[in-house]
Amino acid sequence: MSELDGILEHIDSDLDQSLARLFDLLKIESISTDPAYKESCAMAAEWLAKDLQSIGFDARVAPTEGHPMVVGHHEGPEGAPHVLFYGHYDVQPVDPIELWENPPFEPSIQTMPNGSKRLVGRGTSDDKGQLMTFVEACRAWKEKTGILPIKVSILFEGEEESGSPSLLPFLEANKEELHADFVLVCDTNMWNHTTPAIATALRGLVGEEITVKAANRDLHSGYYGSAAANPIHILSKILCGLHDGDGRVTLDGFYDAVPEVPEEVLKQWGELGFSEADFLGEIGLSIPAGEKGRATLEQVWSRPTCEISGVVGGYIGEGFKTVIPAEASAKVSFRLTGNQDPDKIRKSFRGYVSSQVPEDCHVEFEDHGGSPAVHLDYEMPELKKASGALKDEWGCETALISMGGSIPIVGDFKEIFGMNSLLIGFALGDDRIHSPNEKYELTSFHKGTRSWARILQALG
Amino acid sequence: MSELDGILEHIDSDLDQSLARLFDLLKIESISTDPAYKESCAMAAEWLAKDLQSIGFDARVAPTEGHPMVVGHHEGPEGAPHVLFYGHYDVQPVDPIELWENPPFEPSIQTMPNGSKRLVGRGTSDDKGQLMTFVEACRAWKEKTGILPIKVSILFEGEEESGSPSLLPFLEANKEELHADFVLVCDTNMWNHTTPAIATALRGLVGEEITVKAANRDLHSGYYGSAAANPIHILSKILCGLHDGDGRVTLDGFYDAVPEVPEEVLKQWGELGFSEADFLGEIGLSIPAGEKGRATLEQVWSRPTCEISGVVGGYIGEGFKTVIPAEASAKVSFRLTGNQDPDKIRKSFRGYVSSQVPEDCHVEFEDHGGSPAVHLDYEMPELKKASGALKDEWGCETALISMGGSIPIVGDFKEIFGMNSLLIGFALGDDRIHSPNEKYELTSFHKGTRSWARILQALG
Repeated sequence: MSELDGILEHIDSDLDQSLARLFDLLKIESISTDPAYKESCAMAAEWLAKDLQSIGFDARVAPTEGHPMVVGHHEGPEGAPHVLFYGHYDVQPVDPIELWENPPFEPSIQTMPNGSKRLVGRGTSDDKGQLMTFVEACRAWKEKTGILPIKVSILFEGEEESGSPSLLPFLEANKEELHADFVLVCDTNMWNHTTPAIATALRGLVGEEITVKAANRDLHSGYYGSAAANPIHILSKILCGLHDGDGRVTLDGFYDAVPEVPEEVLKQWGELGFSEADFLGEIGLSIPAGEKGRATLEQVWSRPTCEISGVVGGYIGEGFKTVIPAEASAKVSFRLTGNQDPDKIRKSFRGYVSSQVPEDCHVEFEDHGGSPAVHLDYEMPELKKASGALKDEWGCETALISMGGSIPIVGDFKEIFGMNSLLIGFALGDDRIHSPNEKYELTSFHKGTRSWARILQALG
Repeated sequence: MSELDGILEHIDSDLDQSLARLFDLLKIESISTDPAYKESCAMAAEWLAKDLQSIGFDARVAPTEGHPMVVGHHEGPEGAPHVLFYGHYDVQPVDPIELWENPPFEPSIQTMPNGSKRLVGRGTSDDKGQLMTFVEACRAWKEKTGILPIKVSILFEGEEESGSPSLLPFLEANKEELHADFVLVCDTNMWNHTTPAIATALRGLVGEEITVKAANRDLHSGYYGSAAANPIHILSKILCGLHDGDGRVTLDGFYDAVPEVPEEVLKQWGELGFSEADFLGEIGLSIPAGEKGRATLEQVWSRPTCEISGVVGGYIGEGFKTVIPAEASAKVSFRLTGNQDPDKIRKSFRGYVSSQVPEDCHVEFEDHGGSPAVHLDYEMPELKKASGALKDEWGCETALISMGGSIPIVGDFKEIFGMNSLLIGFALGDDRIHSPNEKYELTSFHKGTRSWARILQALG
């Protein structure tokens, strides 16, 4: 039996223990965006640092202005490359809580009618389940061989779901310690249940919150109706005006730095067997929204978007209240592609919004972070090595895909350290990340761990 | 000393006890629109029935499908008229609670810099403080003379702030018991701090709630952004489209049954000394919203409106969540004037909304009640008598005004019993009803009680 076969076999036989460890981590309610869970975030960081120490990493919890980082280092053989692995231990909020079939922080294994198994709970897929595939692969290497085949540094952050405010300052302050040859990130999807994927392009993100303020208090709609400015009306007009009749974003200069996808790339995407009907059907829809004349895959992989992710104003309780509220607000996110500049997009948005607010009202803005889109180099040798290792595990060619989501750190790694990132993940499109009943396939976790064991060898 | 002078003097000397009784009632958290306060509503009804019994009323708490009614009767002299007095013991919700300077259900008396005093707390003005002016006037009559000068029936409901769903069935079922010569309602405003008013026109109301549903779950905006329908976008477009660029409501046939106000009435309104700048300035605004080319007083007294009183969808907590929600909803209220038919307006609204929803999404409607506008007869003899009694108390002519608000029961009394209603209230435009820090001037309560004592005599 080869060294690798022994390691893979160990991963198989140790699966129950791997799951038990993952479940311990999943039970910690590390919701980063809500200050009420600050202590839980710290607990998740402590748990991870201890677990890394148990594998032989020199690991610590590093405080920041926000939630702490976990940093760990493990030596490799002389002359072997040095990788930095990135993941995040924070998770999304769980609302609407009433739609969860099981409590979000009581993870369980469900057996499906076809016999397949899945891990269910908040963070199973995004990103605790994913990051533990790498940790478990390292553990198997250590337990079977006593070494890791390459030098590995690890950075787990706790603010990925809330705009990563502490990340950039932390990277800047620990530039030397965190520098490696390249980065491995496990926070992305496979192409489908049986086809592994490496993401070579990611959309950027701009997050904004606007609050329109009108009267100095809530008003009775009978006494003031129509005569007094209603901030919900103003907000609706602002939000409605963000898209034109063709689904295009109306902001000045929004598409200026957005290149058309080359014909040959569109052709390659066309050959992936993507079904728009299945994609929409799985979420209960049938008619593609968004830009007219753009295929769905092109839209989610290569076109910038503007989505309103939250809106609130006035009376929202049970029953009815005839009120004109004093204020109304919305959270708006932009996904960026090509060379769109987050600052320019934010400025254009704020200019548009301000122009829509009557003179006797005003609007307040809150910046929820921003990052440009990222495109990886197709010729990177590590990409080919990892791609081959994934093929060995899954038995088919690795799909090189684009991602609609944003992982701002990839841009930061490139900008600050000049490091390229390999985005390798085992999540699936139906994992319900950010939604109730988030899940991660057991095969994603198990074969994901095996995949990393192979990738570590291939990179060594 | 005349009989009336003795009664008025008694009201003056008993003021502290009157306030103590009112405060007992104000402390009961009778929020009708929120099921959590069901028990408190029942307590408020019990309190009122007992208080009426203590004055000699044959009073009882009458159960309904919703919150109970309080019904009481007191005989008058042979041949004297019979009035039905209406008020409501339920109050509006208290959110946003953080804006209250004192807890809403711990009423207090505040002395202003100019020495005037005000009662502060939820319900002080709308409508517990108002209805108790009438009860205290009856008490003074009984305590000083042992009789009431007219036959008085009383109906207090507990669902006025939540669309009065039980009222119509209750009136129908108790038609004989509740029939009187005419109705007195104390739920309206004075013209200003020193000028009493009787409202001769009231706008009607249609309440609707719409929920737009798109995908079968919340989605990650990175994976589905722009390709999947976003219900907040759909809702924003619907809400935005309710008004045109001139502030007019766009629904089919909306203005069909809305008459223009006669020139002479507009002239009379012009002479009331209404200041648009003061009206808007007091609430922190300066530019009239609503229909272009219509004066503010004309708008709030005689024009129909459409106001969005609540909107919610997606993530509304702290921080940011890149989600496309599964649904979004809004509460929309229409104020009706002239002969607008609530059913027709609702139908037109629903037709418009449905037409705006993509085929693969759907919309659900909730009916929050409706009532037509009401216009009283200027020649009603009781109007002249009450108007004279108010003049005696306040020392100036009584203003005959329109009201922007809606009191659906007034239409019901007319329709079911053929009874006219006299709308006499002592609230003021700055009472912050439906808002945090609701108040009622001590003069409103004190002189309001004295006014009713005089009106009872004038009607006798």
